[in-house]
Amino acid sequence: MSPSHKHVPAECPAIREVLNRVGDKWSVLVIAMLGEGPRRFSELRRMIEGVSQRMLTLTLKGLERDGMITRTVYPTIPPRVEYQLTNLGRTLLQPIQGLAKWAGQNREKIQEARGKYDSTHAKARVTPVGTHE
Amino acid sequence: MSPSHKHVPAECPAIREVLNRVGDKWSVLVIAMLGEGPRRFSELRRMIEGVSQRMLTLTLKGLERDGMITRTVYPTIPPRVEYQLTNLGRTLLQPIQGLAKWAGQNREKIQEARGKYDSTHAKARVTPVGTHE
Repeated sequence: MSPSHKHVPAECPAIREVLNRVGDKWSVLVIAMLGEGPRRFSELRRMIEGVSQRMLTLTLKGLERDGMITRTVYPTIPPRVEYQLTNLGRTLLQPIQGLAKWAGQNREKIQEARGKYDSTHAKARVTPVGTHE
Repeated sequence: MSPSHKHVPAECPAIREVLNRVGDKWSVLVIAMLGEGPRRFSELRRMIEGVSQRMLTLTLKGLERDGMITRTVYPTIPPRVEYQLTNLGRTLLQPIQGLAKWAGQNREKIQEARGKYDSTHAKARVTPVGTHE
């Protein structure tokens, strides 16, 4: 075992378990959005392009269960429901922003790599296996 | 718009796009494992508990396409296939370790929150809707 062997594996059961929840794309995006302040369901839905009503509902419920966000119902007519980060959820903002920063810095490199990969693997894609049997 | 409004949303299209790829649990775990050095498929499969053969294959192919890892075939008998991080993949280690560290530090708090949520929402789970129609 190399000395570097300790780095990640020590955290490995923890990272696996927590990633099951907070490592999915929608949770990360919800937390990032709520980093700006409390938001309603409809606002989140608009902010997070591509999320379905059902997926957003499940994500919010999961995050509430994990103690990352709170759901507050204000007794107006009609009732106003707001989601916001708990202190625990707020601590996740920093690692998520690290990821966001990386994404912003490396987006083009990934696009470039994809283009390169696709052109070298083009033959395999042009002739899909089993379509002309 | 509050001053904090600029923080995350500026990165938002980038984070969403990149999370589609690197924000899934298996990719994050593969990158973390390869942070220790090159690994074979069978080693990765053993290290990442719960991943299926198919899922690991798809994850590795996706990461290769994104320029995050390389796949090298050594002409031994039988051929040896090794995966390792590219320089680009290596730059993702730091944000991932930030996430891993957070996970290690907050695992118990999440467990606690889950227990609390489940006990207050127990009634709804004990009497599932529609089972005794």
